[in-house]
Amino acid sequence: MPTIRDIAKKAGVSVTTVSRVLNNHPYVSKEKRLVVEEVIEQLNYQQNINAVNLSKGSTQLIGVVIPFTNHSYFALLMEGIAKAAVAANYKLVLIQTNYEKEREIEALEMLRYKQIDGLIICSRIAEWDIIECYVKYGPIVVGEDASSKKFVSSVYVDHYKGFMQALDFLYEKGHSKIGYCIGRQRGANSETRARAYADFLALKELEKDDRLVFFDNFQLEDGAKIVNQLLRLKNKPTALLVTSDTVAAGIVTSAREKGFQIPEELAIIGFDNQAIAKMLHITTLEIPLVEMGKKLFELVKVNGENSHKEMKLKLIIRNTV
Amino acid sequence: MPTIRDIAKKAGVSVTTVSRVLNNHPYVSKEKRLVVEEVIEQLNYQQNINAVNLSKGSTQLIGVVIPFTNHSYFALLMEGIAKAAVAANYKLVLIQTNYEKEREIEALEMLRYKQIDGLIICSRIAEWDIIECYVKYGPIVVGEDASSKKFVSSVYVDHYKGFMQALDFLYEKGHSKIGYCIGRQRGANSETRARAYADFLALKELEKDDRLVFFDNFQLEDGAKIVNQLLRLKNKPTALLVTSDTVAAGIVTSAREKGFQIPEELAIIGFDNQAIAKMLHITTLEIPLVEMGKKLFELVKVNGENSHKEMKLKLIIRNTV
Repeated sequence: MPTIRDIAKKAGVSVTTVSRVLNNHPYVSKEKRLVVEEVIEQLNYQQNINAVNLSKGSTQLIGVVIPFTNHSYFALLMEGIAKAAVAANYKLVLIQTNYEKEREIEALEMLRYKQIDGLIICSRIAEWDIIECYVKYGPIVVGEDASSKKFVSSVYVDHYKGFMQALDFLYEKGHSKIGYCIGRQRGANSETRARAYADFLALKELEKDDRLVFFDNFQLEDGAKIVNQLLRLKNKPTALLVTSDTVAAGIVTSAREKGFQIPEELAIIGFDNQAIAKMLHITTLEIPLVEMGKKLFELVKVNGENSHKEMKLKLIIRNTV
Repeated sequence: MPTIRDIAKKAGVSVTTVSRVLNNHPYVSKEKRLVVEEVIEQLNYQQNINAVNLSKGSTQLIGVVIPFTNHSYFALLMEGIAKAAVAANYKLVLIQTNYEKEREIEALEMLRYKQIDGLIICSRIAEWDIIECYVKYGPIVVGEDASSKKFVSSVYVDHYKGFMQALDFLYEKGHSKIGYCIGRQRGANSETRARAYADFLALKELEKDDRLVFFDNFQLEDGAKIVNQLLRLKNKPTALLVTSDTVAAGIVTSAREKGFQIPEELAIIGFDNQAIAKMLHITTLEIPLVEMGKKLFELVKVNGENSHKEMKLKLIIRNTV
């Protein structure tokens, strides 16, 4: 489908001029108007896109399912997805789920109804058998390890390995009372991390203490909340894995204000390598989120064969361990 | 248009079940399947939404034009827009412009082609005469003061008054060498703020020094860049207005590391009242962005009459002045 930019380029005018011609605006010379109108005819630029969609079965729209818009992890994924979409002349339909399954199914229904050409599910809630029902309508790509599923593509990091690497690093530094803070308790990535944590404790013969695991942490403010909980704990952890640098930044700032020495009394490893981690010198496990976003978009565009792409994690050592 | 949730509710089953019925999935009892199929027929649930759109002229999609996805100001606006959209059962089409005018015109073309029902332009680039061409295709709402334009709706804060208030506050605290840091140099809001700054200097008979004005600041890292520029300045400002708390946080953190005493040697007023400003105790001019986002969505949905809504600013005094 030709875009307004194709017309502008071919006619040798600005997009503003094309827009003015399309809208019978007075600020255009007769000569330019004629050239533009000719190109519009040549390129068969249509008036109602829904008619085009019906005949061609393509919308140039890709759906993106995310739980929240205002959350750094998803903002960075979106940044990558949006960059790739802009470059490929696609628009994105944002489906914010607040982790409600019905919203995710509505996104899948959009695929079925050909309102979108493909769907990226950054964080999945619906069961795999439901997802599988919809793949016949268009490509689906998920942001988790789905290499065992043939019907979708996926872009992911190995959260098991990542958690193990971070836990090992803390253990080597002398920590044995290690806790962790995470977003939602359920979900594929959270369950993988819980498994890694349990395996690590078993391997090192460390005691499991449920009070050292903190759920539902997404924002800066949640970091302050965790520090308040730490203050009330008799048996405090000496180190925390924090699965979002944003939350880690909240913990570091709030803990220092409450008199904790970091890293001496409380060591912190964040995740993602967000800008705030760099600014506050937080040791973090880098997840290449912008790159993952770009890859998610690339895979949703490749129709036909599904593929699975693992992205590499990298421990970035700064001052909080 | 009935949604999958309407069907689930009416049939007394879960959306998962409705989805399974729609996709002929085996995990559904015959009884449930029959009930769901009956409701689907009753509600006239259609198979191809583009056909529905063609006949009804409605898509349940609203376009949102933003320059960047990963930027706190727009993330907070988006949070408000997305909340309102979710509640009203609309989806959002994200049009990221990177401040390129052709992308904004493409968004306007989507309105013309009935790919979307309405358009929210959070930060405008195209000229008003271009915008005016498209209002006959659907409602357009902008995130700037457009109360003098009858053809669009707008939700805005008075950036002139806000800048004046912040400058006055600094002046009362004894500052006379005040600079400011802003995003793009052009654009309605930026130009309003530049006018307020010039008027303020004239009013107080203060000297204008272009080196105290910093453009193109959007992210945390830009704060560190500004501090490096400050270090090289002979005639340093004693106070800065920083039109984004994110950038302000970068300045505060980096300036402290470089040995600046805040607020004694450098006073900072941020803007927005983002979470990071609260965390770092930054004095800020609150812009109710989430509320503005909700209002932007409400106004794009009200077809017919245009209206203009001013939101209130509020100075929040913390520790950086």
